[in-house]
Amino acid sequence: MATGRSNRKTRKRRAPPGTAPGTLVADPGASQPTIQLIAYGPGSFEEVAIKEIEDLGSLIDKHPVAWINVVGLANLDLIRSLGEMFDLHGLALEDVVNVHQRPKVEEYADHLFIVTRMIEGGAPPTTEQVSMFLGERFLLTFQETPGDCFEPVRERLRKGRGQIRGRLADYLAYALIDAVIDGYFPVLEACGDRLDALEDEVMARPSEGQARRVHEIKRELLVLRRTIWPHREMLNGLTRESSPNITDQTRLYLRDCYDHTIQLMDIVETYREIATGLVDVYLSSVNARMNEVMKVLTIIATIFIPLSFITGLYGMNFDDTASPWNMPELKWYWGYPVVLGLMAAAAFGMLYYFYRKGWILGGGNDSSR
Amino acid sequence: MATGRSNRKTRKRRAPPGTAPGTLVADPGASQPTIQLIAYGPGSFEEVAIKEIEDLGSLIDKHPVAWINVVGLANLDLIRSLGEMFDLHGLALEDVVNVHQRPKVEEYADHLFIVTRMIEGGAPPTTEQVSMFLGERFLLTFQETPGDCFEPVRERLRKGRGQIRGRLADYLAYALIDAVIDGYFPVLEACGDRLDALEDEVMARPSEGQARRVHEIKRELLVLRRTIWPHREMLNGLTRESSPNITDQTRLYLRDCYDHTIQLMDIVETYREIATGLVDVYLSSVNARMNEVMKVLTIIATIFIPLSFITGLYGMNFDDTASPWNMPELKWYWGYPVVLGLMAAAAFGMLYYFYRKGWILGGGNDSSR
Amino acid sequence: MATGRSNRKTRKRRAPPGTAPGTLVADPGASQPTIQLIAYGPGSFEEVAIKEIEDLGSLIDKHPVAWINVVGLANLDLIRSLGEMFDLHGLALEDVVNVHQRPKVEEYADHLFIVTRMIEGGAPPTTEQVSMFLGERFLLTFQETPGDCFEPVRERLRKGRGQIRGRLADYLAYALIDAVIDGYFPVLEACGDRLDALEDEVMARPSEGQARRVHEIKRELLVLRRTIWPHREMLNGLTRESSPNITDQTRLYLRDCYDHTIQLMDIVETYREIATGLVDVYLSSVNARMNEVMKVLTIIATIFIPLSFITGLYGMNFDDTASPWNMPELKWYWGYPVVLGLMAAAAFGMLYYFYRKGWILGGGNDSSR
Amino acid sequence: MATGRSNRKTRKRRAPPGTAPGTLVADPGASQPTIQLIAYGPGSFEEVAIKEIEDLGSLIDKHPVAWINVVGLANLDLIRSLGEMFDLHGLALEDVVNVHQRPKVEEYADHLFIVTRMIEGGAPPTTEQVSMFLGERFLLTFQETPGDCFEPVRERLRKGRGQIRGRLADYLAYALIDAVIDGYFPVLEACGDRLDALEDEVMARPSEGQARRVHEIKRELLVLRRTIWPHREMLNGLTRESSPNITDQTRLYLRDCYDHTIQLMDIVETYREIATGLVDVYLSSVNARMNEVMKVLTIIATIFIPLSFITGLYGMNFDDTASPWNMPELKWYWGYPVVLGLMAAAAFGMLYYFYRKGWILGGGNDSSR
Amino acid sequence: MATGRSNRKTRKRRAPPGTAPGTLVADPGASQPTIQLIAYGPGSFEEVAIKEIEDLGSLIDKHPVAWINVVGLANLDLIRSLGEMFDLHGLALEDVVNVHQRPKVEEYADHLFIVTRMIEGGAPPTTEQVSMFLGERFLLTFQETPGDCFEPVRERLRKGRGQIRGRLADYLAYALIDAVIDGYFPVLEACGDRLDALEDEVMARPSEGQARRVHEIKRELLVLRRTIWPHREMLNGLTRESSPNITDQTRLYLRDCYDHTIQLMDIVETYREIATGLVDVYLSSVNARMNEVMKVLTIIATIFIPLSFITGLYGMNFDDTASPWNMPELKWYWGYPVVLGLMAAAAFGMLYYFYRKGWILGGGNDSSR
Repeated sequence: MATGRSNRKTRKRRAPPGTAPGTLVADPGASQPTIQLIAYGPGSFEEVAIKEIEDLGSLIDKHPVAWINVVGLANLDLIRSLGEMFDLHGLALEDVVNVHQRPKVEEYADHLFIVTRMIEGGAPPTTEQVSMFLGERFLLTFQETPGDCFEPVRERLRKGRGQIRGRLADYLAYALIDAVIDGYFPVLEACGDRLDALEDEVMARPSEGQARRVHEIKRELLVLRRTIWPHREMLNGLTRESSPNITDQTRLYLRDCYDHTIQLMDIVETYREIATGLVDVYLSSVNARMNEVMKVLTIIATIFIPLSFITGLYGMNFDDTASPWNMPELKWYWGYPVVLGLMAAAAFGMLYYFYRKGWILGGGNDSSR
Repeated sequence: MATGRSNRKTRKRRAPPGTAPGTLVADPGASQPTIQLIAYGPGSFEEVAIKEIEDLGSLIDKHPVAWINVVGLANLDLIRSLGEMFDLHGLALEDVVNVHQRPKVEEYADHLFIVTRMIEGGAPPTTEQVSMFLGERFLLTFQETPGDCFEPVRERLRKGRGQIRGRLADYLAYALIDAVIDGYFPVLEACGDRLDALEDEVMARPSEGQARRVHEIKRELLVLRRTIWPHREMLNGLTRESSPNITDQTRLYLRDCYDHTIQLMDIVETYREIATGLVDVYLSSVNARMNEVMKVLTIIATIFIPLSFITGLYGMNFDDTASPWNMPELKWYWGYPVVLGLMAAAAFGMLYYFYRKGWILGGGNDSSR
Repeated sequence: MATGRSNRKTRKRRAPPGTAPGTLVADPGASQPTIQLIAYGPGSFEEVAIKEIEDLGSLIDKHPVAWINVVGLANLDLIRSLGEMFDLHGLALEDVVNVHQRPKVEEYADHLFIVTRMIEGGAPPTTEQVSMFLGERFLLTFQETPGDCFEPVRERLRKGRGQIRGRLADYLAYALIDAVIDGYFPVLEACGDRLDALEDEVMARPSEGQARRVHEIKRELLVLRRTIWPHREMLNGLTRESSPNITDQTRLYLRDCYDHTIQLMDIVETYREIATGLVDVYLSSVNARMNEVMKVLTIIATIFIPLSFITGLYGMNFDDTASPWNMPELKWYWGYPVVLGLMAAAAFGMLYYFYRKGWILGGGNDSSR
Repeated sequence: MATGRSNRKTRKRRAPPGTAPGTLVADPGASQPTIQLIAYGPGSFEEVAIKEIEDLGSLIDKHPVAWINVVGLANLDLIRSLGEMFDLHGLALEDVVNVHQRPKVEEYADHLFIVTRMIEGGAPPTTEQVSMFLGERFLLTFQETPGDCFEPVRERLRKGRGQIRGRLADYLAYALIDAVIDGYFPVLEACGDRLDALEDEVMARPSEGQARRVHEIKRELLVLRRTIWPHREMLNGLTRESSPNITDQTRLYLRDCYDHTIQLMDIVETYREIATGLVDVYLSSVNARMNEVMKVLTIIATIFIPLSFITGLYGMNFDDTASPWNMPELKWYWGYPVVLGLMAAAAFGMLYYFYRKGWILGGGNDSSR
Repeated sequence: MATGRSNRKTRKRRAPPGTAPGTLVADPGASQPTIQLIAYGPGSFEEVAIKEIEDLGSLIDKHPVAWINVVGLANLDLIRSLGEMFDLHGLALEDVVNVHQRPKVEEYADHLFIVTRMIEGGAPPTTEQVSMFLGERFLLTFQETPGDCFEPVRERLRKGRGQIRGRLADYLAYALIDAVIDGYFPVLEACGDRLDALEDEVMARPSEGQARRVHEIKRELLVLRRTIWPHREMLNGLTRESSPNITDQTRLYLRDCYDHTIQLMDIVETYREIATGLVDVYLSSVNARMNEVMKVLTIIATIFIPLSFITGLYGMNFDDTASPWNMPELKWYWGYPVVLGLMAAAAFGMLYYFYRKGWILGGGNDSSR
């Protein structure tokens, strides 16, 4: 089933236990890499698709800032070469390839290693790891698959809009992280819309599948929380720690980004509480309906079972010729009308009892209970 | 339905992901702005509706303190001009326009940026963002729509009551925040009144809609908590951080205001726990009623079904002429009375059994169970 | 209803939002004040009911320590005069009159402002605010209504028992706070006794009202926790902060008092968990009883409904003269006894089935399920 | 009932509110004291039952370390004398007599005051307060009743086993605390055994009393947690604070003891979660059984009630001579067999419907629901 | 039963309370020890099975780093000798033998004592204690039983792969800890697979045993959490504390390992929440099914019970010759057809009522409820 399949996606695949640290093991489903270089400065801009890694060096040196974006993680040699070129730590490279990292920031000698996870819509939503190495003048990013939420940032770079071309690599990193974080809002909104619709539905008409759907939404929120929470920590780290690679000016922007993660957590937690409350509402609706069903059964059965007994009584075949005591009622002049009246009285008595109990016609009063 | 619509209001609308930071995007439903200036000092007071922003400068300089209140956020040019005039940061201005901020305080070079949310009654209650820029001698506030809870503060300024005219802008900011916080109390009280009424009702007579109403109250409390909590943090920040824009004297007043937010959180949490407990009471009432319904059905059915069987037995048409074994009872002299007695005995036996079980007439004792 | 009324008492009444800070607004139900002065030293003791506030000054100067106790908060002028005499802050005076403060301690220039809440028995228990201003040589206390738990302290002062007369005002403040805290123990014990009784009852014989009573006890515990918790914080503050008004010796005593609040919180939390567990026990008892009711119904109905069908079958009036196929059984020699035997066999078969299921006579075994 | 009685034991008895601090009030049930002195050094050992407190001084001076163990707290004069002899603080002495203290450590001028609680088996388990005053060369302990878990320590002292005789009083204190803490393990294991047995039982065959027994186990765990938790804090305090009375060497041993309390808390929390989960399992078992009962009733009733209707139909006595429309079926040649066939068809139709629903014989498939 | 037995394994066996600290008591089930020495340096490697402990010294001195691995803890003399040889603290040795320690790190004069727990698959999973003493140039490890997850590390040592031979003992310790931690991932994945399968099953077709299976999975997760959590603390300790035995380079690797424990905790917590949500889904499915069963019963009974009453009515034997009022209907010309029509009308009326209620054929509308 679709649910089961998607669940399995949340599980981690990794190198077998005991493997040497820093060993790069490509994910079986990884794509072949393409490299895009965007190098720019206040007055310059160049966007090149890199074929040979040797071309990179000279291009980078020409511009104040270089953004090297690698899409696809299947070619381990390429990743190792880049690691050597930018002097990256083996453990960080291992984390780039092993795409199940939690968002985090790690400080190395002359660069920061940042892991974020880009959300992609769908039910349930999935995430893609984006790893970044931030030096003073370069930003090296790794994505798992083509397709990202960075196009607006590229557009700003191309058009030279805003202050982005005039700033260093840290501002570019901020812009990308901001795009990643902002990407969570529409997904969360879609989730909230479904929760709202489900809430309206549960309140209007509880039915069996709803408990499952609440469970599915709770599961998605669980996944979102698990992804957003470490982003929050990561941004907190970036904002507070005094890495020389991040300027105070950019820190102000990262603080804004951090605020967004708090807002996201807020929304996730609120949705989770609403979803939990919804289960209570659902259960109490189901209970109330069962109660109603039982009342109908009880009223009908309680009225007619005694009446049926009476009819059964006078349907017996005792021989009235054998004894004067054998069912003399059957021969009475008013026998049948009296029995009919008796049954009517019993039925109305029952109905009055149920009315007093408050089971029918909104009757009953508190003190009688 | 009304509930669904109002829920949607709690969702955030914002600039599309990847937009450059500091980009002002007007909310589609924003109102056209009006500007009100209240400038004052210990001995002076002036209240002017500003038409042209150029008029502002000279008016502000005439008085020790100036409060510029902008109502309506549709005119981005105006907001940008004010930003330039008071040297405000782009990110802060973005937050002014994007009216879904959590309450917070941010320190900039020479001013504080404070976001609060003003509560408005109604079911469910809604909030309106009030953004403040606090300099030493000016307070610049932005509201979304006309209508606020600041009239008593304006009245105190006009009449020169209390110490407010003799103090700097930080005291004015305190007075406004205090008015915002105090506005939560009546809303929370109304919520508590409804909870009390619902509690009395659930205890007196549980009915289906109550679970939904508890859920709605819990949802409102969730919204209130989500708004009050960051106010608490914000005031804590204002009280503890050593911004030069806030005097020690005002800090004392802010501490008082902070106490109020603690009190608010206290009340919200208490109500939440009561509401949660109410669900238990409701469910157990529903269960108890179902139990009662089942007992009535069981007693009636258990007594009459066996009796009906007996009447059925003697309603069979076996031919007593074909064999002496075919229902000879029907011809016995005492047949009918004996059967009647048998049925009465069975009925009383059942009733006694139920009495011993404690199902009827409060009978039964613990050891018999 | 009583419950609803008492709930309303937990809500706060306060000055309308936007009122100037420090504005004294008398509670509509406040009592007219009486002032009692107890001034003492190691060798001296004087207890006077003060009529004119002017008399106070000279009396205070005569003794090392003065305790001025004001009962009733209706006379705002009096409170203002006292505020001026002892140089008290307006915000603190506002809190004295607005009797819904959480327990807290606030440090002012030369005195401490302490708020505690005195418990009063009753169901649900209510609290009364006691505000204290602690200077080096004076203690000024405000109560809402006559009647307090301080009589033993007064007695110790009058008799000169213990070390109390030889110490400064901080020790007196400790003694009063200690009396307030100790007052919570009997109230909590009474609450625990009721919980124990209810627990015994639920275990012996669940009935509908019990869920409500658990809810009421949980509500009371909620109120107690909400009152005790800030006392704990307040005492922690008094113990740790280095106010010059409190000597190290007294701090040792306050630490003891702080331990008591921890003990109180402990008991409250334990009771809360027991009460929560009790709801589970109650619900499972109700479920078990419903199960039992259903079993009785099912056994009786399942046995007799098929039997009734058989009797109905042979109660049909098909004309045996019209066809040899029309109910020839009715004429068989052994017809009636065979049908009786058939019915007995069906009944015993059912009973054996129920026995195997474990529904009757403790039968059934695990492997058969 | 036993449960109610034991609950009451967890409640605190104390001096009436307002009593002067340091007032010793003997517990009404306190035992008469006996005093045991064990004085020792690397090469010396003496164990004396003390009759007169005056004898104590000379005996103590003869040996490097003295352990004075007082069992029974009824004699307040004796306790006061000891307090004077060792210069103990009045508040600490009050805590010795008021045997409802939480475990804690308090630092006084030249000694530490330590409170621990010794567990005693039984259902529910009870605890006994052991108070210790630790000086450099003496350890003064107070127990409520004879019988303790210190015999192995005394044996080690007597035999001179291990390093205990060569160390100062702090090591002795550690050895006693260690014995107290280790005493919790068997009690907790017994509790875990009962929980395991109950778990097996609930899974095999749910019955009503189990919910109560889970509740009782949870209650015991609550009591254990409430006792173990402050021990943990107390040991943490002893390990970290720099009291001169505790050597660094002993601190290492106390850290080990602290580890044990963490382990105890771990086990208690695990058991609590298992017990909570057990309630869910129990409730779902009860629900499943009720479902099964309902299914049996519904199957039987749904099959036979329509059949009984048919038999009732042809049991009516309409006069077929009055009209050709009055029940002509009764005279048909194939009337009876056709009706029998009709009833069989109805019964099998119902059975097939139930099979499709999956109610009988494991039938039904998911897509049909 | 298997469950009960395995539970008992989680309980601790230990020395009796009061035993002297540092006393070694062998676990009754401990294996006889074998000792393996792996000594190595950048250019050398030696792997020897040690028979006599005296051989150890010379072999160790020959190589820069020595890893002495002891498997089996039954020989206490051997352990004591090793303790003397490496100057280990008695308390640490006690923890080696008492194999129920929580993972932890303790700093001693010149070595670190580290406890980890190696996971072993199976349902429920069990753990085996691995104790390590880490000096600058030696690593001494103790395992309970043969078989571990260190084979890949040994292989790396033998082959000289990676940097492991060129580093000191701290890197070896890291490699072992990393292998232990990585071993948890497959076990957790297996647990997650079972949870997924169970989730699919509960959603497709709830049945009684599922609640138990959820409970068992929750129990396993509890055990895993209890083991992983202290690993996290332990690694945090190793990363942050400034022990001279751990180089900064290795600290970087340990941070990576620490990240893995966070990931593990994340997964465990997510699974726990899913499992908890699954109980809700299960209960609401069971409730929904019960509701469906009740509806079928109610519909059938409510339709046929009144009809049966009517047939019973005309099955009575009142003597129509005794009175014109005795059941004249039986002789009416249209009597039988009219009664049939009446019954059909009653049945259709009921069906329409149920349709309006939404009980059959998806009928009913919200406003009618």
